[in-house]
Amino acid sequence: MSKQVAVILSGCGVQDGSEIYEATLTLLRLDQLGIGYHCFAPDIEQHHVIDHRTGEVAEGEVRNVLVESARLARGDIAPLSELEAEDFDAVILPGGFGAAKNLSDFADAGANLTVLEELAEKLAEFREERRPIGLMCIAPVMVPRLLGDGIAVTIGHDPSVAGAISAMGGLHRSCSVEDIVVDFENRVVTTPAYMLATRISEAATGIFKLVDRIDEMMDL
Amino acid sequence: MSKQVAVILSGCGVQDGSEIYEATLTLLRLDQLGIGYHCFAPDIEQHHVIDHRTGEVAEGEVRNVLVESARLARGDIAPLSELEAEDFDAVILPGGFGAAKNLSDFADAGANLTVLEELAEKLAEFREERRPIGLMCIAPVMVPRLLGDGIAVTIGHDPSVAGAISAMGGLHRSCSVEDIVVDFENRVVTTPAYMLATRISEAATGIFKLVDRIDEMMDL
Repeated sequence: MSKQVAVILSGCGVQDGSEIYEATLTLLRLDQLGIGYHCFAPDIEQHHVIDHRTGEVAEGEVRNVLVESARLARGDIAPLSELEAEDFDAVILPGGFGAAKNLSDFADAGANLTVLEELAEKLAEFREERRPIGLMCIAPVMVPRLLGDGIAVTIGHDPSVAGAISAMGGLHRSCSVEDIVVDFENRVVTTPAYMLATRISEAATGIFKLVDRIDEMMDL
Repeated sequence: MSKQVAVILSGCGVQDGSEIYEATLTLLRLDQLGIGYHCFAPDIEQHHVIDHRTGEVAEGEVRNVLVESARLARGDIAPLSELEAEDFDAVILPGGFGAAKNLSDFADAGANLTVLEELAEKLAEFREERRPIGLMCIAPVMVPRLLGDGIAVTIGHDPSVAGAISAMGGLHRSCSVEDIVVDFENRVVTTPAYMLATRISEAATGIFKLVDRIDEMMDL
């Protein structure tokens, strides 16, 4: 029986959902390592819909996070409510603004952010079982709220986001796009991905490293 | 000055647009090889919108192919009308039902398919200049209409699609998911991708081979 990883998505598109390349590269690396995976997303309305060509809000458009995330999973996805930590050896959250708009309200609230209650419950189960947790791009900003104080993470080196993480009780470590930050004690792995990437191959290097480290940690 | 490749998208999601993994893996491989790329898509309405969770048509929903394709390109995309073959050394079309519903009407018309006129014009320029052309998944079904008779392509080994290609004057060669079919004379490279793939790593192997071969052909 191969290892199994849950991947939590937040829509489909960097501006209002999961960053597409980050999610795809995560799944690619898991599959290349022979690790099974299943995708989950909350069955909620998106915070808003962004026209990715113009960057403007598409007024009046309403989309559902689970339905749009299904595009990224070729239909093979389940509601986040159905995620059982005991069925998985680890969990990974790709980034994109969906993490800051749908899974949390960081985009509006900054250091006063709240996280989706359902997500907090599921992540608490993984933490309790000491199963490795990977987060990339802006998603690590949720770590102090999701997992508690004093956990080392990276979002690259953006001073205001790093400051918000500190203000919430987290530890921020600067990191290059092709590297990862590992908190061994808390079993949390993070990488900057498109917080810093200017090329998809740069993002891939950091994301592959993150997945490889999660793979190793599942054996420990 | 690095080589430049145009990538033509048809939406964002396997059921009604570009297959997301195919498009992402194409861009990843181009970037890993140091090849520059730019994405294009037609500024037209999608044939329809599919709820990728249920597989059902989302009645009443209207989306634009260029706007949705922009999600796959992180906003960095231009209308297909602005594609100038002389600015690029090759062109690649990922698959997904967008190729059979938005770029052509193969999904409805089978061997009687017509292709988007704008696409036919652009591809004719690449063919005239003998610039390599790559197509994957279901997209090769358009080759007889886009590029003319007697060009060898693959869509894997689906008998009815292969039969339609033959009926239109094309040559179909069976091919495994991890391999490619190359028509050297006509400078066309194809791979089955998600016509056959059951795992993302399988699709990646064939797609990387296709991009690598296009890279070599650009030097010849």
